[in-house]
Amino acid sequence: MNSLGIDADALLRDLETLAQFGTGERGVTRIAYSPIDLQARDWVDAQLRGLGCEVRRDSVGNTIATSPPTPLLRGEGSRRAITIGSHTDTVPNGGRFDGALGVLAAIACLRTLQTSQLKLKHPLEIINFMAEEATMSGGTTGSQIMAGLFNPQQFEQKAWDGRLVREHFAGARLEIRDWRLAIRRPDELAAYMELHIEQGDALIRADKQIGVVEGIVGIRRYRAVFEGYANHAGTTPMDSRDDALVQAAPFVQVVRDVAVAHNVIGTVGKLDVMPGAPNVIPGRVEMIVELRALHTQALDEIGGELIARAIKMGGALERVVDKPPTHSDAGLLTCIEASCDALGLTHQRMPSGAFHDAASLAAICPTAMIFVPSVGGVSHSPDEFTHDEDCVNGANVLLNALLRVDEVMDY
Amino acid sequence: MNSLGIDADALLRDLETLAQFGTGERGVTRIAYSPIDLQARDWVDAQLRGLGCEVRRDSVGNTIATSPPTPLLRGEGSRRAITIGSHTDTVPNGGRFDGALGVLAAIACLRTLQTSQLKLKHPLEIINFMAEEATMSGGTTGSQIMAGLFNPQQFEQKAWDGRLVREHFAGARLEIRDWRLAIRRPDELAAYMELHIEQGDALIRADKQIGVVEGIVGIRRYRAVFEGYANHAGTTPMDSRDDALVQAAPFVQVVRDVAVAHNVIGTVGKLDVMPGAPNVIPGRVEMIVELRALHTQALDEIGGELIARAIKMGGALERVVDKPPTHSDAGLLTCIEASCDALGLTHQRMPSGAFHDAASLAAICPTAMIFVPSVGGVSHSPDEFTHDEDCVNGANVLLNALLRVDEVMDY
Repeated sequence: MNSLGIDADALLRDLETLAQFGTGERGVTRIAYSPIDLQARDWVDAQLRGLGCEVRRDSVGNTIATSPPTPLLRGEGSRRAITIGSHTDTVPNGGRFDGALGVLAAIACLRTLQTSQLKLKHPLEIINFMAEEATMSGGTTGSQIMAGLFNPQQFEQKAWDGRLVREHFAGARLEIRDWRLAIRRPDELAAYMELHIEQGDALIRADKQIGVVEGIVGIRRYRAVFEGYANHAGTTPMDSRDDALVQAAPFVQVVRDVAVAHNVIGTVGKLDVMPGAPNVIPGRVEMIVELRALHTQALDEIGGELIARAIKMGGALERVVDKPPTHSDAGLLTCIEASCDALGLTHQRMPSGAFHDAASLAAICPTAMIFVPSVGGVSHSPDEFTHDEDCVNGANVLLNALLRVDEVMDY
Repeated sequence: MNSLGIDADALLRDLETLAQFGTGERGVTRIAYSPIDLQARDWVDAQLRGLGCEVRRDSVGNTIATSPPTPLLRGEGSRRAITIGSHTDTVPNGGRFDGALGVLAAIACLRTLQTSQLKLKHPLEIINFMAEEATMSGGTTGSQIMAGLFNPQQFEQKAWDGRLVREHFAGARLEIRDWRLAIRRPDELAAYMELHIEQGDALIRADKQIGVVEGIVGIRRYRAVFEGYANHAGTTPMDSRDDALVQAAPFVQVVRDVAVAHNVIGTVGKLDVMPGAPNVIPGRVEMIVELRALHTQALDEIGGELIARAIKMGGALERVVDKPPTHSDAGLLTCIEASCDALGLTHQRMPSGAFHDAASLAAICPTAMIFVPSVGGVSHSPDEFTHDEDCVNGANVLLNALLRVDEVMDY
């Protein structure tokens, strides 16, 4: 099989153009459901329509573009769609590549298919998922809904800005009561592949051009609570205090030590001291402990150990988020690796430490991801950067993997 | 000298009435400059007027009641005023006694003077200070302004609710540009005495009825900053992290250990993790370290030790608040102790670990404070409680000390 190539200039120009939506003093801010996010989606939709796609928005805002346009009635023996894509929403003050690259590389693939007049055996779908970032409660909202994994209680949770998720939906003129219309059946999709920046520095450290993602780590979050007794800091002697922060602070180190010992990821990224005044002894400390691992058993073991340690220290852990690990499809991985080899690109298998829409889609179809290097491993930041060459390499791997999958998949 | 007594029933009734202003589900909330705070002040003013005082509000909202009314021109040999009082503002969800007792006990003293037709040699002033609690930046705002200790930059600082202090002033229809009109000259006041609940449990532990406050501790606050590098928690391996919270957390214990070793008070009551998301490695941690001690030298030594320890741990300390310790006037302490003895009340000398308006007034006149026991040492809380008998005891000590000071002071 000869290797086709994408139009590198067009891809890089598209990256430049999309970054203009929401670019401010500090990086790109395109929060899901915000006016600028919707404007960026409109621009993406226009590109897709320009390449002959039928473009629709589902009931929660995911964009689904189909090429060739879906027939009203699918005939006997019609094939499932091969799907590629990612998301165009960002965190506040985020970067230009996270999500954007996957969507624009999918457009680049489509462009090459058009130019070369190459017809796939499967319908091709390009999806621009809504609300992948954790701005609306837990993140990957659009893809979780599509894959039937969504708990509608999340609509009543607070989004990043303190407003309820349902208010963000309403602000984008979506009807929450219609959310179930966005769920898709497992027999609609043949496969989902997503190109994304690595967001870590493993590829650069290993001097590899492409990461072949063998799975996405499970994320488990616990709320750790340490209770003391709030009192006036000036009048309560040191020996009659019950200071929740003095109890809780060493647990930060415990989380780190236990994670390192088990060779997984453990983070305390949020810690709140209550009431939080300089002259009041902390009466309560809450922190969110996040664990990430590729195997559920590891999460269970480490979670159990942390629960036991917290109890000994006077605290308590409650599980608040549990996203299971997902594993990539072996056949898709083979197609991706064969494409890398055909293109002469160095590659390695690796887990994804970050969550992605592919983890949701794994519930309804085979999935796999392609990573390209992130300079300094920086992401969710204005400093996020991936070299032009790596963006193009990734898109080329996606295109060639797409052709291989189209070839080998017979449903 | 015979001991006069205050009208206990009237005092307890007044405490009950004042607590109705701002009582909610969780304690009393009478934030300085809020409508309910201003309503409570109006009620206090009405009581003072009913007892024949001339009542005025100064340009920043302090209430000053004079008995007998001040002559327009003070004659040769006229005496300075003896001043008693406290404040009626509270913290959010505070108690019924902090501040309120001192103001209402002053009214009780005035009531007895009226009933007994006793004439003092000095004019008597009762002050209800504005904004004693640290809701408007650092606290004791009204008394600091009166004593000429105020830095007007505080008007531009954020108050407890995130609004600027100047906005709270404007909301109470005060003109910030007039604040200097509230400054008083050192030759206006002969003495200032304040009755207050202890807010600690030293008196109950020592089984004493009255605390004779020999000084108010100095308060020094440092902002401790630990800088790391914020990055995606899922994709950044444990060994390439620069986690500001992992650096900073052990410093909480250091503050406690150093304070205990030097037998002073040391508290971390506020700690902020930035950006503060469960899936982002903390890039910056700020905490406020508060030290309290009765001697400046101790504050200097301990502050120096903490600065050195923070540097070793990768952090930095910046001094942000420095209220020097103040020491009570020996003559006033003698009058208070003699009053306790005459009333048959047990007493002990003690420092005040909390800041009070008396600390501000010490800059312009001799000051002293009288403490009564707080059950459980609880304050700034709905659970704050002082027994009726202790409230009455404290007011009786204040009345008798007032008479003695009037007797012995010759200016």
